[in-house]
Amino acid sequence: MNGAESLLTTLTNSGIEVCFTNPGTSEMHFVAALDEVEGMRCVLCLFEGVISGAADGYARMARKPASTLLHLGPGLGNALANVHNAKKGCVPMVNIVGDHATYHLEYDAPLTSDIEGIAGPVSHWVHTSSAPEHIARDAAEAIRQAGAHSIATLMLPADVSWGENPAGAEPVVRIPAPQSVPAQRVAEAVARLRSGSNCMIMIGGGTEVSLERGHKASQIAQACDAQLCTDVFPTRVARGAGTAVIERLPYLAEMAVDRLKDVEQMILIGAKAPVSFFAYPNVMSAISPAGCEHFVLAQNEEDIDQALGALIEALGAGVNTPQVHKLNVCDVPTGSLDANTAAMAIAHYLPDDAVIVDEAITSGIAVAPMTATARRHDWLNQTGGSIGWGLSAGVGAAIACPERKVICLEGDGSAMYTIQSLWTMAREELDVTVVIFNNRKYSILELEFARTGARGGIPGPNAASMLDIGKPDMDFVAMAQGMGVSATRATTAEEFAAQFKEAMQSRGPRLIDAHVPSLSG
Amino acid sequence: MNGAESLLTTLTNSGIEVCFTNPGTSEMHFVAALDEVEGMRCVLCLFEGVISGAADGYARMARKPASTLLHLGPGLGNALANVHNAKKGCVPMVNIVGDHATYHLEYDAPLTSDIEGIAGPVSHWVHTSSAPEHIARDAAEAIRQAGAHSIATLMLPADVSWGENPAGAEPVVRIPAPQSVPAQRVAEAVARLRSGSNCMIMIGGGTEVSLERGHKASQIAQACDAQLCTDVFPTRVARGAGTAVIERLPYLAEMAVDRLKDVEQMILIGAKAPVSFFAYPNVMSAISPAGCEHFVLAQNEEDIDQALGALIEALGAGVNTPQVHKLNVCDVPTGSLDANTAAMAIAHYLPDDAVIVDEAITSGIAVAPMTATARRHDWLNQTGGSIGWGLSAGVGAAIACPERKVICLEGDGSAMYTIQSLWTMAREELDVTVVIFNNRKYSILELEFARTGARGGIPGPNAASMLDIGKPDMDFVAMAQGMGVSATRATTAEEFAAQFKEAMQSRGPRLIDAHVPSLSG
Repeated sequence: MNGAESLLTTLTNSGIEVCFTNPGTSEMHFVAALDEVEGMRCVLCLFEGVISGAADGYARMARKPASTLLHLGPGLGNALANVHNAKKGCVPMVNIVGDHATYHLEYDAPLTSDIEGIAGPVSHWVHTSSAPEHIARDAAEAIRQAGAHSIATLMLPADVSWGENPAGAEPVVRIPAPQSVPAQRVAEAVARLRSGSNCMIMIGGGTEVSLERGHKASQIAQACDAQLCTDVFPTRVARGAGTAVIERLPYLAEMAVDRLKDVEQMILIGAKAPVSFFAYPNVMSAISPAGCEHFVLAQNEEDIDQALGALIEALGAGVNTPQVHKLNVCDVPTGSLDANTAAMAIAHYLPDDAVIVDEAITSGIAVAPMTATARRHDWLNQTGGSIGWGLSAGVGAAIACPERKVICLEGDGSAMYTIQSLWTMAREELDVTVVIFNNRKYSILELEFARTGARGGIPGPNAASMLDIGKPDMDFVAMAQGMGVSATRATTAEEFAAQFKEAMQSRGPRLIDAHVPSLSG
Repeated sequence: MNGAESLLTTLTNSGIEVCFTNPGTSEMHFVAALDEVEGMRCVLCLFEGVISGAADGYARMARKPASTLLHLGPGLGNALANVHNAKKGCVPMVNIVGDHATYHLEYDAPLTSDIEGIAGPVSHWVHTSSAPEHIARDAAEAIRQAGAHSIATLMLPADVSWGENPAGAEPVVRIPAPQSVPAQRVAEAVARLRSGSNCMIMIGGGTEVSLERGHKASQIAQACDAQLCTDVFPTRVARGAGTAVIERLPYLAEMAVDRLKDVEQMILIGAKAPVSFFAYPNVMSAISPAGCEHFVLAQNEEDIDQALGALIEALGAGVNTPQVHKLNVCDVPTGSLDANTAAMAIAHYLPDDAVIVDEAITSGIAVAPMTATARRHDWLNQTGGSIGWGLSAGVGAAIACPERKVICLEGDGSAMYTIQSLWTMAREELDVTVVIFNNRKYSILELEFARTGARGGIPGPNAASMLDIGKPDMDFVAMAQGMGVSATRATTAEEFAAQFKEAMQSRGPRLIDAHVPSLSG
């Protein structure tokens, strides 16, 4: 087999069976190998930002990495923002980046670039395979690194791809099990939780807050009368009826500071000590009150389930019944359409076992509280702050879970970064409903402008024009139809509810262009 | 003034009066400063790939850099592919990248990343401003570096932006003049050109082939009976009636090798020794024949006009009349619409002084020869091979030259990388006509698949599906209208000619979705 076939076989041997790609000339032997090696589903995307976002959404739902296939440094550059998001969310990803043949690099052809240099800042592990007989071993190491950390980026020069590799492929790669949390640390957590201080358990970060983990955390919190919270943007959270009642730290630093002002002890599970998303003049970066102690029970890469189990055991918390949400579905909204009435319709019609991908920024704020008692679902957050993740993550989530309804909540501004995702949804006939909260503004920036205190918090006309994306208005129905996705526009709560209901009751990609007012009206 | 105002004033003092941007929270003080400092036109783009491509197109036409304003590492990542293209084309660009406040970085907030690390591979100069009182000096250095080399990337931490800078702004920055080519090198070129060898003068690369330079090169070539050629993708070339007859090296290495097989001496002006764009099994990377000598008369950063003048003087070539194209406008096409008939209509109706931005890949091949004798125009090439440049470069070219008609020739595949460009065309009411050669294929990759010899050159069904972007078909009329751009579809030569004629005779953004067959039919 050649290097490309060796690579593909090594990936599929280890259960990496999806590759999101937009290949170029240097990747043609990899593409050719798709007809020689069985077991890889290759998903074509029209832009590399879709690829890395899809790989992120896939890995969160499949609980294993996808691979990407990218075209040299610029292709990796296009993917970079969503690789950043995945890295911040500790989501595993195996990036394969095609490069020129090794002997071609010295000629500095137009597409020659320092690919390792571009990859470094967003990768935990970077390596260039130097010969066809190394590619299987290198791919195996990439799989291990992605499993143990998050982002592994492997460069595949064209001659490594097309050269013969008599050694063949690697067998299944064993990902090292996460390290157990030592008893000493569990004992220390117990001591702090029983110290009589005002305690908060914070879970989340790059750690999935699954149904079971939420239940365990609830049992622990009850056993020691601690508060229970996730950070602002945990990677994946089980929500709705039957899931544990877990508060979410507010995004606005001012509100988060107020929320935490009495906390004396914070026990961190996967999550990190909370910090302000951005810096603002005269606002502290660290959000916990002065004197609050932070104790890391388990880091994201450690064995979270073992840590929770050991803590339950040590506290005798197993006797407690987790505090869970009861199903309480809100009414169908009527009247004007805004973020609240849209949230009501979403909460009302949300089907069992849906996946919500949230990048609706300001308009999405209402949806999370409204769906807390809706039917059971998973919620994926934007973990790295790099806009343009939601639609593409929806692609990946739908490919990982073809039997579940995926709902992308998107701002109009954020949707436009990777709008090409719609085409892949249509091409792969994915069961995704996209809700565009179309308020014709970078509404979050109107808020942030005020918070930074720039120009006394009031944008002048030039500044205001940079926050206004309503000139011209964008017609997402037309754009979606242009990429093969059925779409409708909603301007009242009744229209939105009817359209969302129909989307939940049918299958396939669908977009609702929901015209809502911005925060500033 | 604060740091942001100091920065803005320094930029405008030196004639940098356009900023392409998509700002975020960390850039709000820069945005606020737009209402305090006069003279900067800030152009909002919905995605950073549009920003860097527009800055490239602007600088090529304005012959001076634009600035970009980008949002932290991910914003720079999104811009990276078109920064790469500009770097390869030696196009000047001043990138301002907002970052967290300096004291906020240690908290590793979600958007924290190694911005210098990301910037390095695509920049000639990278610097992080560390205090408000340094920002003017740092901006001045960025302007100098962009002028002397190409890509300058300056990080602007939020606290440097909002902090007071009592020192104010820098006065106009003096760009060092390009170095003269020494007489010794000119004499050596003369000796080679008069050696009796089979000589070729190659001009281009990152060097604009202006009307005047083309004429001079033609005089020189006649004086010593040399062939005259540009490389495959020179940054900017004056073409059409009255411009010098200059051949263009073919893209396909096989054809280029054949074209050059008898050349013994190559005199390089701006251009580099020709190399194959990609590597292929059993194809040489260097294209010139074995034994061909390459002599660099002038590098791109040197004084090209002085070098040409000195060579004319030394050769006594001033007596020669440049060989120029006579106006010869082809007929209006009829019948079926394909790349050739579309090219005929474009050549027929091309107005005086148009700017053609070419990223039509395979479909564009016919347009260049057909327009060689059309009305006088400038032609911009894709210099770095990173797809997604054309529409955004069209935005920048139109802003640099509001009185000239800009025509973007785009493939359907390449258009989708920065399709958001259409919205900025509508918002700024730019006089751009976009022609989408919609063949429902990555047609170039069908060709390249065969050239790499993968799987005997014949894609299997899985590989073929990765080259096929017609499932679903994309409707560019709908997408353009969704972003506020008037659009029509053409399926016959008559329809295309009528629509293109109308576009040339009116002003404002316009898209024609030209349905053409792919290379493979």
